[in-house]
Amino acid sequence: MTITVAIDCMGGDHGPRVTVPAAIQLVRNHSDVRVILVGLTESIRPFLGDAAVGRIALRHATEVVAMDESPALTLRTKKDSSMRVAINLVKQGDADACVSAGNTGALMAISRFVLKMLPGIDRPAICAVLPTLTGHTHVLDLGANVDCSPGHLLQFGIMGASLVSAIEHRDRPTVGILNIGEEEIKGNDVAKRAAELLWASGLNFIGNIEGDGLYKGEADVIVCDGFVGNVALKASEGLAQLLATFLRQEFRRNLFTKLAAVVAMPVLNKFKKRVDHRQYNGATLLGLKGIVVKSHGSADVLAFTRALQRATEEARSGVLARISERIAQQQPLQETA
Amino acid sequence: MTITVAIDCMGGDHGPRVTVPAAIQLVRNHSDVRVILVGLTESIRPFLGDAAVGRIALRHATEVVAMDESPALTLRTKKDSSMRVAINLVKQGDADACVSAGNTGALMAISRFVLKMLPGIDRPAICAVLPTLTGHTHVLDLGANVDCSPGHLLQFGIMGASLVSAIEHRDRPTVGILNIGEEEIKGNDVAKRAAELLWASGLNFIGNIEGDGLYKGEADVIVCDGFVGNVALKASEGLAQLLATFLRQEFRRNLFTKLAAVVAMPVLNKFKKRVDHRQYNGATLLGLKGIVVKSHGSADVLAFTRALQRATEEARSGVLARISERIAQQQPLQETA
Repeated sequence: MTITVAIDCMGGDHGPRVTVPAAIQLVRNHSDVRVILVGLTESIRPFLGDAAVGRIALRHATEVVAMDESPALTLRTKKDSSMRVAINLVKQGDADACVSAGNTGALMAISRFVLKMLPGIDRPAICAVLPTLTGHTHVLDLGANVDCSPGHLLQFGIMGASLVSAIEHRDRPTVGILNIGEEEIKGNDVAKRAAELLWASGLNFIGNIEGDGLYKGEADVIVCDGFVGNVALKASEGLAQLLATFLRQEFRRNLFTKLAAVVAMPVLNKFKKRVDHRQYNGATLLGLKGIVVKSHGSADVLAFTRALQRATEEARSGVLARISERIAQQQPLQETA
Repeated sequence: MTITVAIDCMGGDHGPRVTVPAAIQLVRNHSDVRVILVGLTESIRPFLGDAAVGRIALRHATEVVAMDESPALTLRTKKDSSMRVAINLVKQGDADACVSAGNTGALMAISRFVLKMLPGIDRPAICAVLPTLTGHTHVLDLGANVDCSPGHLLQFGIMGASLVSAIEHRDRPTVGILNIGEEEIKGNDVAKRAAELLWASGLNFIGNIEGDGLYKGEADVIVCDGFVGNVALKASEGLAQLLATFLRQEFRRNLFTKLAAVVAMPVLNKFKKRVDHRQYNGATLLGLKGIVVKSHGSADVLAFTRALQRATEEARSGVLARISERIAQQQPLQETA
């Protein structure tokens, strides 16, 4: 089966300078993948160079969504933006997935408007992969929904578990809910009621996960509301930057430490590669009738290629059908919730 | 002025084995500090050894609060626990502050019951110090309150700013609110309404801080509800452990990497010392009519000594009077909120 990925080439901090080389990389690495490069063709072409690779199509789009633009305004006015045209290609069945490094809010709004939600899902959720001591975990929502009901968190659990089942061919991935262990009350009201729904859901639910559990491999899927998920993810990014800065400063302190850095460099580079957040780039907008992957805005070619690969894997695995099936099973239960 | 610190010697994972040597360390380092060691004297004495240090008093308490005990039950039944007796010493004016590494929920419940809240403060908040690129920041609440109103977040801002003013002798510390930048909505409803109150408060409020801003030194004080604060803090702990584990694994991979580790060891040790979370041990329960500092349960002697130092500094700085004054100024404004 050939997979076609529509790429919003104009999105992100770097636009075609990153998105086009990443697209070329993707089709070079995967002989069964086609890409449609969407955007201002005059901006895209220079980066195509003489890449003698087939399976690359161009689709002109006259507008570009700015990173700080209002999603609502974008939705109403920019009907021919590269982002919207890429999403339209998925809607029309011309592409199996689309990827954008653009404005998250606009991507959410347009995707939801154009593709619509899967039956039984109220809202899309942003799902990303985080490294853990034992491998990795899928966490959702990471910022699409700031106020979630228990029922939404149940839907996130179902979608996350379906995604992991589909991509990693695992029957019953474990699902946990992010909560806090402090205090008598042990967590907030929404999390407690969501846990009740999850226990009754038939998912392989394992209960509460505290913040540090995000990186311990305690569950294959961890659900949380988008506010807390976003803060946890960004706090982690901030801490990683702090530690990297301090480590660099210590190795640059004097001649001796600089020599030590030279000796330690191969080890430090392996470490760096292992924890390289670019490897984890590409968050899925789950719950839509189509596959939409959001790349980090600052992604470089390596990172954006990873997001493209994620979209390809999801398209190949039939994740949408998996979610729909699972939600249909849940329906009677959910209605009583 | 002599400062007297009451120490719950039985709390934490290690009890007197850690708390007593830390107390000895504190009085050795500070000639104007007295300590009252509270707990089972027969358990405490062996660790006092022949420490020929004055300024150490013992106060027998017959009960011990277990780490997993229900706070409500503890509050009702264990009237002679080391934790409660230590807090009573503050209430009676026999101590200027107390420190415990015990059960957080019980410490909160007993402190609140025995000491009562400062006028104008509804709930206590847990405030801790985090390292940043430029120094450090105070963050509250870290788990005492899972559902906060905008007015509570305003109170946290006032308390945090008063604490920093008192301890660091700074006139107008900057205050930010933890929020998310994703989506059109830019944050949840409570955070938005709290920001309005904070803008109008007369505090040096600087607006929203995203998760990664926690470690960037963007504000001297960052307020958030206890659920999100606790998850962010624990997620950071989890990530730090993950990175430390991966770094260790890379340096232990083979003979060459082990040699590199030997060469890099002095640098790595300096780095480790710089980011050592033990240096930041000791969270303050702010808002009470008395100084109560909570140590991490797993604290070792170095970490517990830091918590004792924090309590000493707060007692010396007159932080409670500072909070009361600031809240009194705010009162008319708050009532309209």
